[in-house]
Amino acid sequence: MKIEHIGIAVKSLETADKIFAQLFNQQAYKHETVESESVTTSFFQLGQSKIELLEASDPTSAIAKFIAKRGEGIHHIAFEVEDIYVELKRLREEGFQVLNDQPKKGADNKLVAFVHPRDCHGVLVELCQEIKNE
Amino acid sequence: MKIEHIGIAVKSLETADKIFAQLFNQQAYKHETVESESVTTSFFQLGQSKIELLEASDPTSAIAKFIAKRGEGIHHIAFEVEDIYVELKRLREEGFQVLNDQPKKGADNKLVAFVHPRDCHGVLVELCQEIKNE
Repeated sequence: MKIEHIGIAVKSLETADKIFAQLFNQQAYKHETVESESVTTSFFQLGQSKIELLEASDPTSAIAKFIAKRGEGIHHIAFEVEDIYVELKRLREEGFQVLNDQPKKGADNKLVAFVHPRDCHGVLVELCQEIKNE
Repeated sequence: MKIEHIGIAVKSLETADKIFAQLFNQQAYKHETVESESVTTSFFQLGQSKIELLEASDPTSAIAKFIAKRGEGIHHIAFEVEDIYVELKRLREEGFQVLNDQPKKGADNKLVAFVHPRDCHGVLVELCQEIKNE
């Protein structure tokens, strides 16, 4: 298991892109819209992990609700696993509440599922696995 | 620059250690008290990055204040740099407010300094550098 990315909720991707490019002394290498989550995203690579900035594309997005409630800031941590189905089964057996019945297609060609922050000391945990093209 | 660790504020290290050990399917590899920050910490290794759990050891700790205000959850992201003095100078010149005049000794044999979350879209950013024994 490794930290695949940290998701940060921002109001404006355009503004945040500039700030994080200054902070990291490098530009975002990719922008992507994820229709199913109503977000636009940008990615910065730092070693083997990424920073994902997330801007809501409509007010129903989880990111819009997060910002309305808590302000901008860190939204989730995503951990990459070898087999997301095996890990979700293991975590359910350990008593964690997984928020998705089945993993779904997320950004960056990944299958993703979330674990309830109540079970992880306030941390919204994403598990993800690269979608392999057979 | 890489993600050295993610700091998570918890009420009880004893309880959180068990939960995150289940989540990661591995035990914390180290516990450390940082007197200067009034925290006790535990560390999990995930690839080239760590998860640092932080429990306040007294009510004046920044961690105690964070939890009182926002509840448990992600407190900061630490980025490892080659030369913290060079990076802090660069960031100050870019207009970031660095919260420490000089880097200070943190957990895990590191020099650390923090950048104001107001300048980083709500993210408390730690810069850190390994202390080299000459």
